[in-house]
Amino acid sequence: MEKTGLEKGGIYRHFASKEELAVAAFDYAWEATKQSRIRAIEKLASPLAKLRGMVIDFADRPSITPGGCPLLNTAIDSDDGNPALRAHARTALRGWIARLEELLREGMDAGEIRKDIDPPAIASLLISTLEGSIMMSRLLANHSPLQSACQQLEKVLDEIAVSSH
Amino acid sequence: MEKTGLEKGGIYRHFASKEELAVAAFDYAWEATKQSRIRAIEKLASPLAKLRGMVIDFADRPSITPGGCPLLNTAIDSDDGNPALRAHARTALRGWIARLEELLREGMDAGEIRKDIDPPAIASLLISTLEGSIMMSRLLANHSPLQSACQQLEKVLDEIAVSSH
Repeated sequence: MEKTGLEKGGIYRHFASKEELAVAAFDYAWEATKQSRIRAIEKLASPLAKLRGMVIDFADRPSITPGGCPLLNTAIDSDDGNPALRAHARTALRGWIARLEELLREGMDAGEIRKDIDPPAIASLLISTLEGSIMMSRLLANHSPLQSACQQLEKVLDEIAVSSH
Repeated sequence: MEKTGLEKGGIYRHFASKEELAVAAFDYAWEATKQSRIRAIEKLASPLAKLRGMVIDFADRPSITPGGCPLLNTAIDSDDGNPALRAHARTALRGWIARLEELLREGMDAGEIRKDIDPPAIASLLISTLEGSIMMSRLLANHSPLQSACQQLEKVLDEIAVSSH
């Protein structure tokens, strides 16, 4: 409502249902979050630096949406009752996984990431550890879980790096 | 309603509000989940074996509550609007963290876990990785994220073990 300047009734008139409005709100929040996270790492030189930058960005900078990660919230909230919303959350998650797999493969091709790693498993591990620690940090109102998660993920990234010696 | 044999109106008559009913439902689901997870590992001999057993149990056996992990769901759902419910979820999470820290310290005292580890960080990492991967596996209807998470956590437990050679 803030963004559009419309009254509540005015917003509803643009959508056929509350479900459709929830989908549009998720798509908007996800796109804003994604762009903000991309901007934080786009200038980093290499695929591995971008992956490391993403982890550090999560530890350093909270979500730009006030309610926390829109993907996590929507995945849980849409568990029953709004299949269209759930489909959008699933597409968002698949897109994130695909982008991380792509960065991992680029790093493998560039010789900075080991060729014996499993990109889908690492991509999934990065996301699940970040998302779970966001849930914990928010519930406890304490930054430590997110910091522990990020330290561990930096170790994982160290381990998949081609060692320089 | 199934458990009590009461009609819907009958259930509401026992609680002062919908919020209070939600708290009672969470406490019931959390206690049942906890007991089920404890039973899965109680016969394991050592603290480290119990921690490993917990991780394997999450990978092998889905939540006994149909909606998935009650803690994860309640942490997200109570983010606005039900502070009493949120307080119960927070207490549940703190209890889980405390139990894992206790197992880690018992393992340190017994000489099977390295004395230079940080129990709160490891406890937090175990929970956040499990919870985040449950969210992913449920949203994608695919077991892989949970399996990747558990493989990684088994590696973490290998690393904190006092090496036998």
